[in-house]
Amino acid sequence: MAKKQKKAPKPKAVTPRGFRDYFGAEVVRRDKMLADITQVYHAYGFDPLESSAVETVEALGKFLPDIDRPNEGVFAWQDEDETWMALRYDLTAPLARVFAQHRRDLPSPYRRYAVGPVWRNEKPGPGRYRQFYQCDADTVGAPYVAADAEICMMLGDALENAGIKRGDYVVRINNRKVLNGVMEAIGVLNPDDPAAMTSERGIVLRAIDKLDRLGEDGVRALLGEGRKDESGDFTKGAGLSPEQADIVMGFVSARRDTSAATCGRLRELVGTSSTGMDGVTELETIGDLVDAQGYSDRMLIDPSVVRGLGYYTGPVYEAELTFDIVDEDGQTRQFGSVAGGGRYDDLVKRFTGETVAATGISIGVDRLLAALSVGQAEERAHGPVVILAMDRAEMAAYQSMCAELRNAGVRAEVFMGGGNMARQVKYADARNSPVAVIEGSDERAAGQVTLKDLALGARLAAEIETNEEWKAQPAQTAVARADLVAEVRKMIARAD
Amino acid sequence: MAKKQKKAPKPKAVTPRGFRDYFGAEVVRRDKMLADITQVYHAYGFDPLESSAVETVEALGKFLPDIDRPNEGVFAWQDEDETWMALRYDLTAPLARVFAQHRRDLPSPYRRYAVGPVWRNEKPGPGRYRQFYQCDADTVGAPYVAADAEICMMLGDALENAGIKRGDYVVRINNRKVLNGVMEAIGVLNPDDPAAMTSERGIVLRAIDKLDRLGEDGVRALLGEGRKDESGDFTKGAGLSPEQADIVMGFVSARRDTSAATCGRLRELVGTSSTGMDGVTELETIGDLVDAQGYSDRMLIDPSVVRGLGYYTGPVYEAELTFDIVDEDGQTRQFGSVAGGGRYDDLVKRFTGETVAATGISIGVDRLLAALSVGQAEERAHGPVVILAMDRAEMAAYQSMCAELRNAGVRAEVFMGGGNMARQVKYADARNSPVAVIEGSDERAAGQVTLKDLALGARLAAEIETNEEWKAQPAQTAVARADLVAEVRKMIARAD
Repeated sequence: MAKKQKKAPKPKAVTPRGFRDYFGAEVVRRDKMLADITQVYHAYGFDPLESSAVETVEALGKFLPDIDRPNEGVFAWQDEDETWMALRYDLTAPLARVFAQHRRDLPSPYRRYAVGPVWRNEKPGPGRYRQFYQCDADTVGAPYVAADAEICMMLGDALENAGIKRGDYVVRINNRKVLNGVMEAIGVLNPDDPAAMTSERGIVLRAIDKLDRLGEDGVRALLGEGRKDESGDFTKGAGLSPEQADIVMGFVSARRDTSAATCGRLRELVGTSSTGMDGVTELETIGDLVDAQGYSDRMLIDPSVVRGLGYYTGPVYEAELTFDIVDEDGQTRQFGSVAGGGRYDDLVKRFTGETVAATGISIGVDRLLAALSVGQAEERAHGPVVILAMDRAEMAAYQSMCAELRNAGVRAEVFMGGGNMARQVKYADARNSPVAVIEGSDERAAGQVTLKDLALGARLAAEIETNEEWKAQPAQTAVARADLVAEVRKMIARAD
Repeated sequence: MAKKQKKAPKPKAVTPRGFRDYFGAEVVRRDKMLADITQVYHAYGFDPLESSAVETVEALGKFLPDIDRPNEGVFAWQDEDETWMALRYDLTAPLARVFAQHRRDLPSPYRRYAVGPVWRNEKPGPGRYRQFYQCDADTVGAPYVAADAEICMMLGDALENAGIKRGDYVVRINNRKVLNGVMEAIGVLNPDDPAAMTSERGIVLRAIDKLDRLGEDGVRALLGEGRKDESGDFTKGAGLSPEQADIVMGFVSARRDTSAATCGRLRELVGTSSTGMDGVTELETIGDLVDAQGYSDRMLIDPSVVRGLGYYTGPVYEAELTFDIVDEDGQTRQFGSVAGGGRYDDLVKRFTGETVAATGISIGVDRLLAALSVGQAEERAHGPVVILAMDRAEMAAYQSMCAELRNAGVRAEVFMGGGNMARQVKYADARNSPVAVIEGSDERAAGQVTLKDLALGARLAAEIETNEEWKAQPAQTAVARADLVAEVRKMIARAD
């Protein structure tokens, strides 16, 4: 037998770069928010789907923006049979694969929602993780824009059910066909050769998408020769003439007071482009449907919405939270986008060769969670009642108390670690326990237990109180063992 | 610009080998079961943790059984900075990393539950997937076996809350220290050189673990020279003498009618081994605590329990379902194990150098789900009410009906696909919709809607009915548009 080897160094207890863990209250808050959202999706007739977290690279395709290397942006590895596999980077590409694979067994339209982590092999940064949650709802096999209007209204309902107040958000709606009409009008899209000038159109789309951040002059620079930013880096522009840029800028500022007025202005701008005219008609239909359901106070036809992903083919939409926050630089600004989506009629076609009309939304779970906690004092839920392990020989008696409390619906545990009473009370405080239960030999002999009101103790420690108040509401009381459950309940009721 | 390339072949719409998707009712059933289980965990004072799905290979360590290649058994790849990363293969190794990383901020004991997928790079087979769910609860920083007893009782409560009847399961409890005492007694464990003879002990443990399947003679063969199975393959044995094998067999058959009697017999068998005597004392304590809480009808000290994982250091336990099923080969057998766990005092030590006492349980989610559906007719929940899109120009009117129904708590949708009425009714049937709502131009003119009772229609089609019954309960009725919600509710109430 080999001699004992020199010990290897201890492994580091860290997550990989850009990954993190979620603890207790964070998990509870997220689960609650996702339950609120999916309750609305479900009421609208959507069914859950949990697709495999791992896909073949072939099935995933290359739909991440700005990708030129095959596996860039995804975590990928080879299976033993040499197949490339990867973690999904969103929930839409897997949906297209699922629908293509199971289309004979699935109802059509297939209305599904999905919730789960996705993974991006990107450079991590502050608040930017390589694993994060998405919460999507899509209708596959729905060729009419009534489906897009429905998704937008459902998104509004979902945000409200999650706790965003009406008036604090707006769903902004645009149409890629209208954008394409403008591209035709300025000569960077030829309907007879749609693949030509893809890169110029990309620059135009990215320029429009930066309107909020760069303002009109910045966008004009990017539409023209290019733009130097504060750091001195130069971004090459689309090379449009000032006249062409005027048309684009006219388009992004075409928003009027009502959907109908905005659509009227857009119809002027797209000129003779049949794609553009189709797009305007679709926006009019969406506007009418939204108005008919009384949602026009929170839904807005807005020509400046672009959405980054290359696969959108028709309506695109995004939800923005309109209340102000103070950002890391001390600047007041709107909270901004928390969800986005659109119509993608070609994603399933990759697999089947046949166009399958589809539209859907994706909510950025972490962004929305952050939004829900803006201006809210971190309210920490009570932890369990903790029964101190005063005497190790009496664990059965402590576990019986615990069972009585739990059977009465009170969350409770016996302290299972080592250490003296001070250490155990410290633990109960760390758990935000409302009550600690103490039964030492004196209490046992007297048929009593001592209840320590930790919630009150915390308040007393935090506030300046008079001695009289302290005496009137002592943080520690002896009660009859038989009254344990009733007295603990009273104490918790006072704490709430 | 490059010429258009020859088109690549269409990607295959399939999951990678050994992966699958979960649809609608499957997701709902699993979520319900997990909510039932974690409700019990929560009541016992456990908090949720969702750790990163991706870990460094270094942090994960090599705790999968029977591994000799470094990344065998896990899906692993290299990050850009050359760090090896992998998908977690269970929820215990990540817990050890989390506790070591955050131990200054976490309460101790740290009581946490975790639910989520884990991944194994193993050969897939029928019903054997490379991604599956686990549902764990562990107490870290709990040196006393009262924590083990608590986990066993909580496991019983969790199984019952998920729908397993008392009497249909048993939690069997053993102790690795007792096993080690027996190893000392037969001379394959030297307390002064615990690393020696690891492979012999492995063969003995694996032999004991096969008692159910191979019977006493098979196990005796594996303890001795070895065993040839039906296929002719030879498995090398531990090379024990018949006298040594007698001691092992005496141990695995030491179970008596009560915990106390079993422990008494074990005390005889471990002889002078101090580890063995410690182990028996621990089992006695667990037996007493379980008896004191009235759980002795479903908890059992059973010396034949081994549990495969190498990292257990004290009590080990598993939950078995005792009802019979008919397996794939037509044989009647007990359903078997659905959960297992034990004490692992050395897992955190890998990172910190200090022993941190820990014990916990892992439920095999898919096994338990399968158990819950044994003997249960697949009951399909109703789908949404479907409002047919009879007239595309009237979508706003249909969406209004839908909103009325939803606001009254009735799940509802407008048909969003293409196709005639027959196609739409077929869709509603495929969704298991209880009611289809029809408003064509005739109905609209009359201020009516037609309700098609699809649940009744399905029953009428399935049963032989007299004409009178059919007439008395027509599957289709015209009602006033104003009564839509009330009439749909009546129809659904009849369907339930």
